[in-house]
Amino acid sequence: MQLTVAATQMACTWDVETNVAIAEGLVREAAAAGANIVLIQELFETPYFCISEKSGHFDLAHEVDGHPTLKRMQALARELGVALPFSFFEKAGLAHYNSVIMIDADGSIAGHYRKSHIPDFPLYEEKFYFSPGDTGFRVFDTHFGRVGVAICWDQWFPEAARIMTLMGAEILLYPTAIGSELDKPEFDSKNHWQMTMRGHAAANILPVVASNRIGRETDGELMIDFYGSSFIADETGALLQEADRDTQGILVHSFDLAKIAQYRREWGVFRDRRPDLYGPLLTLDGYTTPRNG
Amino acid sequence: MQLTVAATQMACTWDVETNVAIAEGLVREAAAAGANIVLIQELFETPYFCISEKSGHFDLAHEVDGHPTLKRMQALARELGVALPFSFFEKAGLAHYNSVIMIDADGSIAGHYRKSHIPDFPLYEEKFYFSPGDTGFRVFDTHFGRVGVAICWDQWFPEAARIMTLMGAEILLYPTAIGSELDKPEFDSKNHWQMTMRGHAAANILPVVASNRIGRETDGELMIDFYGSSFIADETGALLQEADRDTQGILVHSFDLAKIAQYRREWGVFRDRRPDLYGPLLTLDGYTTPRNG
Repeated sequence: MQLTVAATQMACTWDVETNVAIAEGLVREAAAAGANIVLIQELFETPYFCISEKSGHFDLAHEVDGHPTLKRMQALARELGVALPFSFFEKAGLAHYNSVIMIDADGSIAGHYRKSHIPDFPLYEEKFYFSPGDTGFRVFDTHFGRVGVAICWDQWFPEAARIMTLMGAEILLYPTAIGSELDKPEFDSKNHWQMTMRGHAAANILPVVASNRIGRETDGELMIDFYGSSFIADETGALLQEADRDTQGILVHSFDLAKIAQYRREWGVFRDRRPDLYGPLLTLDGYTTPRNG
Repeated sequence: MQLTVAATQMACTWDVETNVAIAEGLVREAAAAGANIVLIQELFETPYFCISEKSGHFDLAHEVDGHPTLKRMQALARELGVALPFSFFEKAGLAHYNSVIMIDADGSIAGHYRKSHIPDFPLYEEKFYFSPGDTGFRVFDTHFGRVGVAICWDQWFPEAARIMTLMGAEILLYPTAIGSELDKPEFDSKNHWQMTMRGHAAANILPVVASNRIGRETDGELMIDFYGSSFIADETGALLQEADRDTQGILVHSFDLAKIAQYRREWGVFRDRRPDLYGPLLTLDGYTTPRNG
């Protein structure tokens, strides 16, 4: 089973229509290059509004039912025959989530995931907007194989990657929004960011793809330079393709999923796991009984 | 808190006294270079006897009490003031384990770990010799900080690295024996091997050190070329130092553990974990209820 996957990267403004049009153009470009699955970056309809805490931004959220961009992306997926993980700010009754809908190649919805790990840092104030997801980790059966999708901060957690792999994912996709940090002009997390996900690829023996945004976004004095560097890594964590820090575009690569599945099985790690010893993973501090109780 | 760590690599023969003398020489060299902790490779007293299944090799195992190499390493650690994780084939009553004793800088025993994940492949027939360890993952309080040690195949499991980190490890050490595979002259796992552990470093935000053996070992028609490539990675997974594939020697690097601990805390992953969603990690197939039951 040959899978061709694409990662896109782009800058975003407050002109939603333009952002969606650019994303659509990149998806068309990727499909023309043979892509079966196209990964668009996190929350691409708008600037990364979590740069600050503003209650007005809750108006940006949409219910799944009737979200116009979702409908447009479903039509696009169907037209091009590509699977599209669609990242958006979800309103669900009184709750708000950072979510992905997996759109399959016939335009149908293959499933829904709500970001589990929510960051909270200066410039990345996601805990103000999003409740921690309640779906658990998800994999999606698409026309092109079983795909695991998690969202940005989730990419820092080996637990999420491992669980999606255990659930049968054949490739992991991470829509992302990451760049510079407040008052740290020298600091650059790009290599650390890639290395963590390349480690997931190596440990779980499957390809990993990340799409990140580019461009400078500001809110008053606040500013993020998103560093792009979207990439595709193979099942050993080797970096196959990497975008630069500021160019809009796509990456495309084909994988032989059957061959990778065979290697994953041969390598034996999924035979030799020790769930009986993994209890501490279900704690925050490594102790399975409370230390002060 | 400054920690200087060393990794060693060497070839081994069936002359145990010579192997131990070479290891001692490398430890002395590392101590002279300022090392506080010196990591010797896995099962360095002998060739990697797991290349084949021979019941006679069970005679190579020692009880902890009275193991002459352990005593010698304790004296060496005390003399030089270095902490030494000592890898050996352990006999414990009727059971046999692939174990490490952490020797602290005063020669005392800081703790004991039995390899949890046991491989079983042609040339790496460990399941014939070793029961899966019953200690769970361990961290050791040494004069130089809290150190996590796991053994070779354990290094492929993000669960082990994460648990040691949750338990307070400030650095992870992996004594190793890995090289070529049977009937796969073209195959080379070196980069994959390093990448998996560099991923643990990046995801857990701590340095990782691996010591691997070098040299060709044979048993009749069977043959392994151990590929060395011992390395030291920093808390972002960057490769700071790497040995070549066939040279005996040491790597030495100093880390500011307090600075790394501060970065680990700032980065926030240990605030945002979701143990409530990690139940599937305690299964082999990702399903928390049996699928055929």
